[in-house]
Amino acid sequence: MKVTTIHAAGDIRLEDRPEPVITAPTDAVIKITAGCICGSDLWPYRGENPITPGSTIGHEMVGVIEEVGSEVRSFKPGDFVIVPFCTCDNTCPHCANGAQSACVNGGFTTGGQGEYGLVTQAEGSLVRTDGMPDADLIPSLLTLSDVFPTGWHCAVSAGVKKGDTVVVVGDGAVGLCGVLAAAQMGAEQVIAMSRHEPRQEVARQFGATHVVAERGVEGGKRIKEITHGVGADAVLECVGTDDAMKLAFSSARPGATVGFVGVPHGVQLPVERMFAKNVGLAGGVAPVRRYLPELLDLVTSGTVNPGLVFDSVLPLAEVAEGYRAMDERRSIKVLLQP
Amino acid sequence: MKVTTIHAAGDIRLEDRPEPVITAPTDAVIKITAGCICGSDLWPYRGENPITPGSTIGHEMVGVIEEVGSEVRSFKPGDFVIVPFCTCDNTCPHCANGAQSACVNGGFTTGGQGEYGLVTQAEGSLVRTDGMPDADLIPSLLTLSDVFPTGWHCAVSAGVKKGDTVVVVGDGAVGLCGVLAAAQMGAEQVIAMSRHEPRQEVARQFGATHVVAERGVEGGKRIKEITHGVGADAVLECVGTDDAMKLAFSSARPGATVGFVGVPHGVQLPVERMFAKNVGLAGGVAPVRRYLPELLDLVTSGTVNPGLVFDSVLPLAEVAEGYRAMDERRSIKVLLQP
Repeated sequence: MKVTTIHAAGDIRLEDRPEPVITAPTDAVIKITAGCICGSDLWPYRGENPITPGSTIGHEMVGVIEEVGSEVRSFKPGDFVIVPFCTCDNTCPHCANGAQSACVNGGFTTGGQGEYGLVTQAEGSLVRTDGMPDADLIPSLLTLSDVFPTGWHCAVSAGVKKGDTVVVVGDGAVGLCGVLAAAQMGAEQVIAMSRHEPRQEVARQFGATHVVAERGVEGGKRIKEITHGVGADAVLECVGTDDAMKLAFSSARPGATVGFVGVPHGVQLPVERMFAKNVGLAGGVAPVRRYLPELLDLVTSGTVNPGLVFDSVLPLAEVAEGYRAMDERRSIKVLLQP
Repeated sequence: MKVTTIHAAGDIRLEDRPEPVITAPTDAVIKITAGCICGSDLWPYRGENPITPGSTIGHEMVGVIEEVGSEVRSFKPGDFVIVPFCTCDNTCPHCANGAQSACVNGGFTTGGQGEYGLVTQAEGSLVRTDGMPDADLIPSLLTLSDVFPTGWHCAVSAGVKKGDTVVVVGDGAVGLCGVLAAAQMGAEQVIAMSRHEPRQEVARQFGATHVVAERGVEGGKRIKEITHGVGADAVLECVGTDDAMKLAFSSARPGATVGFVGVPHGVQLPVERMFAKNVGLAGGVAPVRRYLPELLDLVTSGTVNPGLVFDSVLPLAEVAEGYRAMDERRSIKVLLQP
């Protein structure tokens, strides 16, 4: 089968590899209907993460079950499923506590930018749709694999509640989904930090009431103006850099929480400021499975359309161009069709 | 009047200084019934904080109002009051949001280890008792000035709830009050980290179900054993050192929050671990005024007896010995009688 591999920074290839096979009774093999490129895939692509040359890359997918192991009883070949990027048995103490991304039997989905994917802990991880979804629902269903629950987790972690003023730092697909989550949770003002017109537009469609194009100190000043000097009730940090984290903390009112879901790269947390201002930090790897039933309902009922984050659809054969487009910010998020 | 001053690390003196006077219409002068030494006073005493030689030290007190400014309408000379260590107008947006320690008009109480103290923003900060309290209630009332609400804030920040398993790092007076707070909030297991027998005893009286004497990695192992490998639902970090913070994070289960109220000294937050494990951090300078009505009820009703943290009572004249006793951990917390 064809699957995407990374050999070095900037070196993305589509290669022939054997199809995944069931090796554990909890495994499932998925024939991928749609996969995509994640903002976190750009870290190795840009040389910011170590790379094992020739390793496969891609962890988001939806598709049809091809085969299941003997202990996977709730799913059968032919089911259309959402595949969380992090897998879980959904029964261990951490899962039972809503921390499925820390499942004692958990792992990560692989092969998402290919023709077939392997899911460990399929019984606990997968969620099925009612029958085969319409083609126009696929992009939104695909966001349920990672990006929408990740934005949602950021808003949950930041404690967003009805009537809040929320700042979202980061206008990537996760940040945009954070805007959508905050708006869904009843935030009265959602301030999206973005200076890219197409992303600003999606942010507005997702419920942003304000767009702030300024960054750094100037961005912080604008937020202070909008919030009448008080700061935001909740802040969503959806990037993972030290600059983004600094802006997030400077935007938060005393007593607020910064939610964070961007893999931290070079972040030094301002512990003295956090202490002096009583600004907390919460978040991390999103427990996707926890949110799936609720978010799947929002998608299938047409309440939300997170698939708008995909502004580009490419055949799998053009995956390398997809990486370039996202790296150069010509595309927000690329959907790949095997 | 007599008031305590610090001239250098280890150099505590009782000196004659003019009595405080009303300079703003929001001020009040308090004739101190009882003051005390705070764990945070030991930072400058040990040379860990910069010192302005000859500056007064001490911020906790209860006493009788001597004089009030023209805008202090709810209190009058003769009232017995709890004086929060941090003052607030209790009306600004931060106060209205429960973050009184970030009040736009806030400050810190001074002169607490002396005969008279000055309170700014008296109207918003002070809370009165019903009449003059019995002498045996004074120690517990004095804890309301700082240490009990600070331990309480740690438990609130950590999100302690009924049935939780809670770890408290730090067996100083704040940590012990954290134990008391967690137990009051319905924690089922409260694990106090302490290797000092007298402190272990107070912890048990405050509701600790387990005492762990081991520190560092060994301490973390013991907590894992007690929690069957899961970790604690909430962790209270009541020290402020990097070692204490490390132990706190290693004790927390995925999805938990570490509450922190110890002024951070050399703390490097483990952001990658926080992200990977979804362990949050919240807390800071305690908004004492927010909690006072509730905690005063708990004290005056006899529900709790936080005054047990005072294992030593000294006349003000012996304040220097009080510092030595706390520095050498011969005393948990010293009450000073002017």
